[in-house]
Amino acid sequence: MPRTATQTRSTMPLTDHRDFDAALRFTAESVERAMYRLLPVSKEPEARLFEAMRYSSLGGGKRLRAFFALAGSTLFGVSGLAAARVAAAIEFVHAYSLIHDDLPAMDDDDLRRGRPSCHKQFDEATAILAGDGLQALAFEILAQPDTHGDPAVRAQLVLGLAQAIGAHGMVGGQMLDIEGEGQALSIGEITRLQRLKTGALISFSCQAGAILGKASEQARHALAAYAHAVGLAFQIVDDLLDVEGTQAELGKTPGKDVARGKATFVTLLGLDHARDQASLLADQACEALDSFGPRADLLRQAARFVVARRA
Amino acid sequence: MPRTATQTRSTMPLTDHRDFDAALRFTAESVERAMYRLLPVSKEPEARLFEAMRYSSLGGGKRLRAFFALAGSTLFGVSGLAAARVAAAIEFVHAYSLIHDDLPAMDDDDLRRGRPSCHKQFDEATAILAGDGLQALAFEILAQPDTHGDPAVRAQLVLGLAQAIGAHGMVGGQMLDIEGEGQALSIGEITRLQRLKTGALISFSCQAGAILGKASEQARHALAAYAHAVGLAFQIVDDLLDVEGTQAELGKTPGKDVARGKATFVTLLGLDHARDQASLLADQACEALDSFGPRADLLRQAARFVVARRA
Repeated sequence: MPRTATQTRSTMPLTDHRDFDAALRFTAESVERAMYRLLPVSKEPEARLFEAMRYSSLGGGKRLRAFFALAGSTLFGVSGLAAARVAAAIEFVHAYSLIHDDLPAMDDDDLRRGRPSCHKQFDEATAILAGDGLQALAFEILAQPDTHGDPAVRAQLVLGLAQAIGAHGMVGGQMLDIEGEGQALSIGEITRLQRLKTGALISFSCQAGAILGKASEQARHALAAYAHAVGLAFQIVDDLLDVEGTQAELGKTPGKDVARGKATFVTLLGLDHARDQASLLADQACEALDSFGPRADLLRQAARFVVARRA
Repeated sequence: MPRTATQTRSTMPLTDHRDFDAALRFTAESVERAMYRLLPVSKEPEARLFEAMRYSSLGGGKRLRAFFALAGSTLFGVSGLAAARVAAAIEFVHAYSLIHDDLPAMDDDDLRRGRPSCHKQFDEATAILAGDGLQALAFEILAQPDTHGDPAVRAQLVLGLAQAIGAHGMVGGQMLDIEGEGQALSIGEITRLQRLKTGALISFSCQAGAILGKASEQARHALAAYAHAVGLAFQIVDDLLDVEGTQAELGKTPGKDVARGKATFVTLLGLDHARDQASLLADQACEALDSFGPRADLLRQAARFVVARRA
C-alpha cells in the first residue's frame, strides 16, 4: 500500500537524520510523491490545463514550506500521510502564486526554477487558469476526509490557509509589492509587505502540524513566533540573493528588484546590516522553540538553512 | 442585531412571495448585504485590492446562483444567515471567474455588467489579484464557524465548492472554452464544456442548501438533476442572447462568440431548435423537483425565468 509506505518513509528521517540537507531532500521527495498522486496526468480534452499545473508545481523547488509543515507535524505525532497531504496543498498554493507572479502584467518573469515560466512554456491564459486551478486544488485536498478524520481539523486547515493566502495575506502582500515599485517604503512598511506576501503562508506552513495534531494554543504561538522570525529572515535573504546571486544559482533572473526600483531590506539596511539582521532573526526563531527541547532541532536547523542558503 | 434581521428577511419572501421577480430582487439584495459585510472597505495600504474586489463583486448582477442557494436552503429549514453566507461565497467566486475571464489574455472583454471590466477600471495586475483574493475569500467564509455550527458541514461545503470550481469543474471548462475557439466541437463536446464551465458552480449552488440542511442523498440527487437541466438551459439561453441580445440589455458585448468562431448551442442547433431545447430542459428541471411538492415552486419559477430572461 503506497500510503502506508509514504507514512513510514516521510516521518523517519525527520526524527532520525542529523544531516539537514538530506532531511530537506528527503522531505522534498516525499511531498513530491504526494503531489504526483494528487495531481495525476489527465486524459480529458482539458489535459493542457493539467499539464500546466503539473509543469509548474512538480519536479522542482526546495519545498521549504513543505518541510516546515512536515517537521512541525513530527512534534505532535501527526501521521506522515496527513502531513504530506497538507504539505502538498501548501506547495500547490505556492506554485500558483509563482505562476501568477511571473505573468507579464505582474513581475513579467520568463524564468522560474531554471525553466521557462508557465506563461512562456504554455500561454498567458493557460497560466492564469493553471494558477486558479491550483488554488482550488489546495482547498479540495484540505477538505477531503483523507487529510484528517476530524472535520473540525479540516475546516481549521481550510480557514488557516484561506486567511494566509487571501487579501489579508499573500494576495494583499503582492498588491503592496506591485504598488511599492518606485516608492520609498520605510522599514516598517516593507516588513509588513513581506509579512503578508511571504510570511503568512510560511506561518501557516509552520502551524499546520499543530492544527493537525490538535496542539495547545501555547505550542501554536511558539510556532507562530518561530514562523514570524523565519519568514522575515527568508525574505531578507531573498533580497540579498537578488543582489548577490547568479541566475545559475537562483534559477530565476537576479537583480530584478533593483532594476524595478523596488525598496528591499538590502536597499534600506545595506548588505552587511541585512545579513546581520537575518542571522539575528534565525537566533530568535530558534529561541521561540525552547519549550519543545531537542525534538525541534530540525526546525532550528531549518532556520539556519534559510539564512545560509545560496538559492 | 443585523444578523437576526437578515435571517428573518431573507427567508420570508422565498416562502411567501408569489411574484418571482420580486423574490429574485429580494434575494439579490439580501445576498448583497451579506457580501458588503463580508468584504468591507479597507483602510490598509493595500486598499486598492479591496476596492477592485468590491468593484467587481458588489452592486450588480442577477445573483441567480445566490438565488439557487437561498431557495434550495428554504427546502431544508436552513437559517437565512447560513444560506446568505454560502450564497455570498458563491457570488464572490462567480465574480472572480468573470474578472479572470475578461482579462486580455482570456476573453478580452472591456465591459461587464454595463461598466468597465475590472482590468479596465483598475489594471491587469490588480484584476488578477482581485480574482485570486475573491477565490480565497469564498473558502474562508465557508470554513468559518458562523457558516454552520457543524464543522463536517463546513468541510463538505468547502469540498463541494473546490470540486465545482477547480480543474475538474469551472476552470477546466474555461480551458476548454479557450481551446475550443475556431474548433468544430460536437454537441456532446460543447455540452461537456458548459457542464464544467458554468454547470458545476450552478450545481453546487443548487445543492448548497441540502448540504447546509443535512438533507438525504435522495434530495441532493433531485437537486443535482434540477441543477443539471437548469445549468444547460442557462447556457443555451446565454448563447441565444449572445446572438439576439443588445449591449444595453446584456451589460456586456454581444456577438462575441460568433466573432471568435466559437461553437455554441446556437451555431450547432440553430436558433429555433436551441430555444426549444432550453424550454424542454426547463420542463425537465421542474420534474426533477416532483418529490418536494409545491415547496419547490420558487425553484420551478427560477427554471422558467432562466429560459425567459433577456439578459
